Amino acid sequence: MLPEDIELSQNISTNIQAFFDATDYEKVAVIVDENTKSLCLPLVKNVLPPSSIIEIKSGEEHKNLDTCKTIWERLTKFQFDRKSLVVNLGGGVIGDMGGFCAATYKRGIDFINIPTTLLAQVDASVGGKLGIDFMGFKNHIGAFMKPRKVFIDTSFLKTLPENELRSGFAEVIKHCLIADAGYWQTISLKDIHGQIWPDIVLHSLEVKNKIVSDDPFEKGLRKILNFGHTIGHAIESYFLEQNDGRLLHGEAVAAGMICETYLSEAKCNFPICTTKKVESYIFQTFGKISLSSNDIDQIVRYCEQDKKNEKGTINFSLLKEIGNPVFNIAVEQEEIRKVIQRYSHL
Amino acid sequence: MLPEDIELSQNISTNIQAFFDATDYEKVAVIVDENTKSLCLPLVKNVLPPSSIIEIKSGEEHKNLDTCKTIWERLTKFQFDRKSLVVNLGGGVIGDMGGFCAATYKRGIDFINIPTTLLAQVDASVGGKLGIDFMGFKNHIGAFMKPRKVFIDTSFLKTLPENELRSGFAEVIKHCLIADAGYWQTISLKDIHGQIWPDIVLHSLEVKNKIVSDDPFEKGLRKILNFGHTIGHAIESYFLEQNDGRLLHGEAVAAGMICETYLSEAKCNFPICTTKKVESYIFQTFGKISLSSNDIDQIVRYCEQDKKNEKGTINFSLLKEIGNPVFNIAVEQEEIRKVIQRYSHL
Repeated sequence: MLPEDIELSQNISTNIQAFFDATDYEKVAVIVDENTKSLCLPLVKNVLPPSSIIEIKSGEEHKNLDTCKTIWERLTKFQFDRKSLVVNLGGGVIGDMGGFCAATYKRGIDFINIPTTLLAQVDASVGGKLGIDFMGFKNHIGAFMKPRKVFIDTSFLKTLPENELRSGFAEVIKHCLIADAGYWQTISLKDIHGQIWPDIVLHSLEVKNKIVSDDPFEKGLRKILNFGHTIGHAIESYFLEQNDGRLLHGEAVAAGMICETYLSEAKCNFPICTTKKVESYIFQTFGKISLSSNDIDQIVRYCEQDKKNEKGTINFSLLKEIGNPVFNIAVEQEEIRKVIQRYSHL
Repeated sequence: MLPEDIELSQNISTNIQAFFDATDYEKVAVIVDENTKSLCLPLVKNVLPPSSIIEIKSGEEHKNLDTCKTIWERLTKFQFDRKSLVVNLGGGVIGDMGGFCAATYKRGIDFINIPTTLLAQVDASVGGKLGIDFMGFKNHIGAFMKPRKVFIDTSFLKTLPENELRSGFAEVIKHCLIADAGYWQTISLKDIHGQIWPDIVLHSLEVKNKIVSDDPFEKGLRKILNFGHTIGHAIESYFLEQNDGRLLHGEAVAAGMICETYLSEAKCNFPICTTKKVESYIFQTFGKISLSSNDIDQIVRYCEQDKKNEKGTINFSLLKEIGNPVFNIAVEQEEIRKVIQRYSHL
């Protein structure tokens, strides 16, 4: 089941129009980047009320306090009050950062998300996690607040370059691995180009929604969504600090999932033959990130700063088998180093 | 009745010690300014666990994004995780800003407040409103999140300079004017030096708590707490932009209460004879801020940016009589100008 604030359709215009017919916002701002401004805004502009456009630069490296400052300044200059609305039209960067800016502007104004990337559609659109990167750490400053509505239309996916599509596909794979062995079979029979996106997005949203509804503030169960993300985030943060913006979130998470499948083998008896299948499908889809031994040292260091850590222990969400996750598995630095080396030397 | 997260005592050490005995935080940071570091920290240090000290500069002019950045950086460098605690030891600036930093660090870690000024004890300690100033507007960026505990000890008030004590006393007066005609009688019989602080703080907390509990997110009733604050905040913001930090929050609110009592007369039939009493007691306690006609123009402009405005209307919380408030009273620019002129020419 989908949460009631999410509307999924292959022609979302009607839904967006209905939303604005039923609400009464005085002022509306649409946050876009150069890509969504040219490729996505034209597809929804006719159903949006007269709006101010706030354009930011695309890319994770701009998901920071400086960009927030720009957004807050623009909202202030437009004299936005508490009855105003922010529309986040873009991928995860715009959803997370635009949402954070809205959630903190005058202590919180409404926002809606129109996610335009696969990653944002299957991942960032559920759960109300907002945030920006800080000092090289992902989503280090942020808040929890739900969008008023999320409008998802998989036809936006046609606007995506292949690496962006792949980046989102990593989360799709993750949702199968942590929650649905059957659906993993289904998707792993086909390569990324053979997938049926409306079905896949619906499946991923249902998986994530079920988990998030059971644990909205990440006190326990929700942590299983972090599978692949402890090492994945560390890799992503490390490359971000190198000013190497080419590595996308999902590409880092794909590598993270391989490493954390190795950890699952070592710590939770994940079956070795299944490791081979997961490894092979992910390598086939994403290729391999080449890492030097210095890179690996740094990535281990980043793992220590993970938000999920408590009292110095590095906690992982791992798998006993596909569809059977466990969380709060304490792992030593040395074990982390080993699995990244295994990934790297393969 | 006091909310259960507030503990009021004339020797708060025992309560603080009991809190730390009952909890299990890995790391603790205490946010102080140069004043609370020298005057207040020694009074509680022996009951705090080993803590990192984050010192910021005192004064409303430092309640901004740059100082937040410093606080977030320090928490990051200290490797604070989600099981860490921030202790805000200071006045409203530290409570609002330290709380905001904690509420957004890794999407929210616990914090406790030990308010050391009268203003923070009677006002900022209840209600969970957090925030910083931005582009000259008060609390323009912020969030709602409650401290885990608030420890109030009126013996801290001995550390305050007179203007700081007066600043808090404005909120005490406000709580009487909006909610308790009898207590207004009690306090207005004596000047500020004759007041019995433990009683007054308890009374103010009870008034504010009752209002905030009934309307935690300021959808309606809670707006009555804004009496004196629409014009008061405008005056404060204007002086802040002039880099004139000498005008404290409560001093601006005192002027705002006089102006808004005049508005109450004009819009809500507030009795003229009572206006005289309110005016006289506030002038006697706070003196008068001298304003040029250009000052007044600017202050009116600031009123337009008030967070409580909706759809271009300037909304006020006013009084029908003492203890009988009303909210959402739309007031025209010209009427605002007139009452500030009346205040100014008196």
